[in-house]
Amino acid sequence: MFIAMNRFRIVRGCEDDFERLWSERNSHLEGVPGFAGFRLLKGPEAEDHTLYASHSTWQDRESFEAWTQSEVFRKAHAGAGARRNLYLGHPEFEGFETVLEQ
Amino acid sequence: MFIAMNRFRIVRGCEDDFERLWSERNSHLEGVPGFAGFRLLKGPEAEDHTLYASHSTWQDRESFEAWTQSEVFRKAHAGAGARRNLYLGHPEFEGFETVLEQ
Repeated sequence: MFIAMNRFRIVRGCEDDFERLWSERNSHLEGVPGFAGFRLLKGPEAEDHTLYASHSTWQDRESFEAWTQSEVFRKAHAGAGARRNLYLGHPEFEGFETVLEQ
Repeated sequence: MFIAMNRFRIVRGCEDDFERLWSERNSHLEGVPGFAGFRLLKGPEAEDHTLYASHSTWQDRESFEAWTQSEVFRKAHAGAGARRNLYLGHPEFEGFETVLEQ
């Protein structure tokens, strides 16, 4: 199992706007080969931002990488540059392989 | 669903030792109320370390916090100070609430 996370630092006070963006988007993920599930996660608050992370699980890294090369991915991210004022810096991508599972 | 992650920066070359520590430990997590699953994740490599993350899922934050106050938790972390040479700095804890799920 592969987990793809993108970390977003959201300006304090903009949390509701950020969550609304995600609740209204169409991820186009249903039916993508190897896709297993998606969550938007709200993490700890810092002085100047709240950490969020998108968290998607995939059968393996190859399925995830194939999706990032697809037309479906391009569509899902077409509006990703909007509302830059919500963000402190760029999102940070981290991909994780499962080493142990219980 | 609540996700508890601890981020570990492991000195390059010590990855196998770190993974062995986790494979040999007894987490005592089975049967803990609200516990839903555990993974050890291997993330991106940087110049001086490899990022790992422990990733446990819980019914809610309260279940996780109750576990951290328990005797079972104390037992599971009894050896946590060992092998400090594997680590670059302290682990960083991040707790995440699920905001959206698909």
